[in-house]
Amino acid sequence: MTMYDTTSPAAPVVPTRGRLRPLGLDEVRITGGFWGDRQSINGTATLSHIESRLESEGWLGNFDLAAAGTLPVGRRGREFADSEVYKFLEALAWEIGRTDAAAGDELEQRFRRVVARVAAAQEPDGYLNTMFGREGQAPRWSELQWGHELYCLGHLFQAAVARVRTRPEADDGLIDIARRAADLVCREFGPEGRDEICGHAEVEAGLAELGRALGEQRYLDQAALFVERHGRGSLGDIEWGRSYFQDDVPVREAEALRGHAVRANYLSAAAADVATELVDETLLAALRAQWERTVERRTYVTGGQGSHHQDEAFGDDWELPPDRAYSETCAGIGSIMFSWRLLLATGETPYADLIERTLFNVVATSPGSDGRSFFYANTLHQRTPGTPADPDATSPRASSSLRAPWFEVSCCPPNVARTFASLAAYVATADDDGVQLHQYAPASVRTTLPDGRVVAFEVETGYPVDGRIRVAIAEDAEFTLTLRVPDWAEGATVRVRTGGEESTEPATPGTVVVRRAFVAGDVVELALPIVARVTAAHPMVDAVRGSVVIERGPEVLALESTDLGSDVGEAVVAGDPVEHDGRVVLPVRRRSTGDTVDAPLIPYRDWARRGPSTMRVWIPTT
Amino acid sequence: MTMYDTTSPAAPVVPTRGRLRPLGLDEVRITGGFWGDRQSINGTATLSHIESRLESEGWLGNFDLAAAGTLPVGRRGREFADSEVYKFLEALAWEIGRTDAAAGDELEQRFRRVVARVAAAQEPDGYLNTMFGREGQAPRWSELQWGHELYCLGHLFQAAVARVRTRPEADDGLIDIARRAADLVCREFGPEGRDEICGHAEVEAGLAELGRALGEQRYLDQAALFVERHGRGSLGDIEWGRSYFQDDVPVREAEALRGHAVRANYLSAAAADVATELVDETLLAALRAQWERTVERRTYVTGGQGSHHQDEAFGDDWELPPDRAYSETCAGIGSIMFSWRLLLATGETPYADLIERTLFNVVATSPGSDGRSFFYANTLHQRTPGTPADPDATSPRASSSLRAPWFEVSCCPPNVARTFASLAAYVATADDDGVQLHQYAPASVRTTLPDGRVVAFEVETGYPVDGRIRVAIAEDAEFTLTLRVPDWAEGATVRVRTGGEESTEPATPGTVVVRRAFVAGDVVELALPIVARVTAAHPMVDAVRGSVVIERGPEVLALESTDLGSDVGEAVVAGDPVEHDGRVVLPVRRRSTGDTVDAPLIPYRDWARRGPSTMRVWIPTT
Repeated sequence: MTMYDTTSPAAPVVPTRGRLRPLGLDEVRITGGFWGDRQSINGTATLSHIESRLESEGWLGNFDLAAAGTLPVGRRGREFADSEVYKFLEALAWEIGRTDAAAGDELEQRFRRVVARVAAAQEPDGYLNTMFGREGQAPRWSELQWGHELYCLGHLFQAAVARVRTRPEADDGLIDIARRAADLVCREFGPEGRDEICGHAEVEAGLAELGRALGEQRYLDQAALFVERHGRGSLGDIEWGRSYFQDDVPVREAEALRGHAVRANYLSAAAADVATELVDETLLAALRAQWERTVERRTYVTGGQGSHHQDEAFGDDWELPPDRAYSETCAGIGSIMFSWRLLLATGETPYADLIERTLFNVVATSPGSDGRSFFYANTLHQRTPGTPADPDATSPRASSSLRAPWFEVSCCPPNVARTFASLAAYVATADDDGVQLHQYAPASVRTTLPDGRVVAFEVETGYPVDGRIRVAIAEDAEFTLTLRVPDWAEGATVRVRTGGEESTEPATPGTVVVRRAFVAGDVVELALPIVARVTAAHPMVDAVRGSVVIERGPEVLALESTDLGSDVGEAVVAGDPVEHDGRVVLPVRRRSTGDTVDAPLIPYRDWARRGPSTMRVWIPTT
Repeated sequence: MTMYDTTSPAAPVVPTRGRLRPLGLDEVRITGGFWGDRQSINGTATLSHIESRLESEGWLGNFDLAAAGTLPVGRRGREFADSEVYKFLEALAWEIGRTDAAAGDELEQRFRRVVARVAAAQEPDGYLNTMFGREGQAPRWSELQWGHELYCLGHLFQAAVARVRTRPEADDGLIDIARRAADLVCREFGPEGRDEICGHAEVEAGLAELGRALGEQRYLDQAALFVERHGRGSLGDIEWGRSYFQDDVPVREAEALRGHAVRANYLSAAAADVATELVDETLLAALRAQWERTVERRTYVTGGQGSHHQDEAFGDDWELPPDRAYSETCAGIGSIMFSWRLLLATGETPYADLIERTLFNVVATSPGSDGRSFFYANTLHQRTPGTPADPDATSPRASSSLRAPWFEVSCCPPNVARTFASLAAYVATADDDGVQLHQYAPASVRTTLPDGRVVAFEVETGYPVDGRIRVAIAEDAEFTLTLRVPDWAEGATVRVRTGGEESTEPATPGTVVVRRAFVAGDVVELALPIVARVTAAHPMVDAVRGSVVIERGPEVLALESTDLGSDVGEAVVAGDPVEHDGRVVLPVRRRSTGDTVDAPLIPYRDWARRGPSTMRVWIPTT
């Protein structure tokens, strides 16, 4: 059995350089609260739900058919069905790490059973895909535009990364499966091989991280090669243009993210990995500029990305129709992947601000309260109440206005699952002198700085309902504690209680930095002003002119017909939002009757949880 | 040779009952002006362009392959490629009628050559389709959801109708081809046959009109049967829902047009035919209510319909994003087909108002000035200038922001061609006591009323640049002349000069009715106030809140970057439109510089004729 590096953090992204070092699941544990609840539901309900669907849809069975040599007869699902199995494995691997499951535990046994089925389908030369290469199937690599072969392998690599970083000593074989497949990719698509790319970026990020995890520079170089091959038109043209695949312009020459929003973010994330590892400052600067423009002009107030249903794509600058927001859940996850890498590279807080916005308002919006239904697209304006989905059926991906248990294209459920299971890895980072807290949740943090200092503290908070974040130092140590002050948090303060002394200082958006010789029991408390605030539309966004959105802390609020008692198309803002008993209430005038009512608002992510409704985030003022 | 009724007008729609009788190309001739120019370009350039493309794309050649028995090898184009050939034949048939081409004329020879190729492909039992039914092809009628078999035949029937109404004595055989195919459809899909429908409505309208033209009640009954079979889910479900095919709700129970906008209009047009012929008042009332709601809530200011690119479909009520307007050219034509039938049935002017709006702002927008390029979709807001299309290439249908010579799905060019060639048939109608003028263009009108009175007059006008419409009586006759006063024409007047006397009266929107014992030389002159006017957005249409559109007569105006000298996203309305030297100029403030400039506006239909540009119809006021 090959031995792998066991010292790297249990995290999805572990660069070898950059401004910040991520803390892994072994160093940060979310202990409850908003995200803790979601991690529990994910672990108890969502993972089983996904496994059962992968089985009943036959997507797991495809691997058995491959192993039995009977394919293509009986193969089920779309061309990318294999990838959902890999994302499920990745989610399971993180869940095993998160819950510290033992080798004999049910979770670990399930993981191994699935790995064994995948392993049996791998061909002697490392090739692994249930859709291509057999008699009666298209030849390997013959349909790079739409075939998703390399995309699927990218997810396999990410699953292996999760495994090697959480159970490096495990003998299930997943890491070797990934290694053999990655070697094949390098042989086939290396500098001397096929000068081509996959229509859906993903193999790049998978290879880059597998290279980091296994110390294989070849995989990183292959990732860099795939990134650089974008923008030369090798995929050919399609109705929606080459931008769909990000094959219109080289990555380093683009001005903004464009085309299919998931592909664009996955590619950008990989490009950030490459820029970091190869110390390519030009590429990094280009990516940062693209991020800036994309966030300013092509991102919904929820953090959602993608304005086009047809091609699941970004629109033009300022093209952000709330009612036709696609805002695919997976695009939100891709955006977090991209932002997180830029945050690690630069240490700058706007990246963490967008991650927070996207987590609360896109990713958390997708799953139903029971963890067994999902939004694929996340509209910001629903004009007609939906009809409940058949819980046993498979739904179209975006036309549903209620969460559905599964989709024909079911990328989102396992993507949410792997994100939730690994969420602790996005909470905090370290550098040479301390720890940075980026996301706020009840958590235990314990890490060792390069010089051996141990930093350990507990985070207590009722965030995002409450804005107080209390950091209680658990062990004596002199270090720098850096807390993010979100961009919306004007008027925040930080109170430091150390050695019986207490001081309170204002904390402006960005970061607040506290350096002390902390002793156990010291407390740093950040108070973020979580109150309802009115956000006006950007004047260039035509689709929301004359409208406002109400936000509260990191949450975007929504008006739902369930609360208004009539269609939300009726409502015009008639006053400022006020808070009553922990609820935000907005005075609105009804167009038809002219009467003014106090309409309770809900967090956007909670819409349609009480049944079919109409809903809007942007509410007209006239 | 079968003999057909030669007394019916040379018009696409000739109901046997209803409020108004259409006047055909033999009774109305457009003699010049705006539409006359377009008919000329259509006849000289567009028809040749289409024929050459049908040849080079192989869509005509498919019929030769069918005749040679070598299909499916070599078949080219999509499943509906046959229909473009039929629409081209229909256009040619109308053009032959419009220009009164003689049997030896080039036009007539071209028509016969194409008919001969089609005829050779028809199978002994009447079946005609190059995509289905042969060895190596899917069986006949096996793919009703997407196969377009009946759709193609519907266009064949309409071509045959054009032929029988313009050249009933011709021996080319097209009418018999259509009859054999229609008989087959009745056998296969009759009351005792397959209880199914086609995924794309069209055969219904084709059968209904063929039934009228040939006096075959069976075809009308079959059309009625197909109409009634909609809404029972027989096509199965798809990602976008059964509304895509109008198979969600029975036609008579629907509240608005929905789903694919071309399908919805074609079906509604056929349902109107059925309602008229079967004197089904309930159905007619349902269609009128659907038309009302669709026009109020689901129609762009241009008359365009369809807010979704993905499924080329209507959106919800009030969902009318200008920047994502699909507004397919063919949906505009379908809307005219539907409105025209309701106008004939009821005589009410709002139907003619919408036809006018759609003709000037959708149908006339599509073709380039040379008649050899087309818009497939008609956005109301273009944020990025396009790149010129390769004149030899085939373009994606909707992503182009410049007119393109041809499309992979090329329904629009021949649809425009058949509409322009038959346009005179939409100008005027008659009833027992006179003639109604619905559309204004220089024209010669001459018809005989049921009691033998001959009504003959010349229309002279510079419409729509100029609002004066002068009707000069050509022969003595006592009759009622009814002129439409468009809904926007507040302050119109009508002046009647008869027998040396002259009187002027106000004419309010709706109709103005003049009954006289006219003598040759009498003049009725309608003066419509064609001045720039500011139209505010409907408060329920979120996407254009805080914006206005400038209209002038029947024309919607647009601001184009070519005239502004900078991106139109910059512009905010800073004053009222004024007219200078026949141009409408709008004071606008530029956001970036704050300076105010007088920006010339152009008719929307003329956008992108001077090269790539950004453009908007709705302009913000704040």
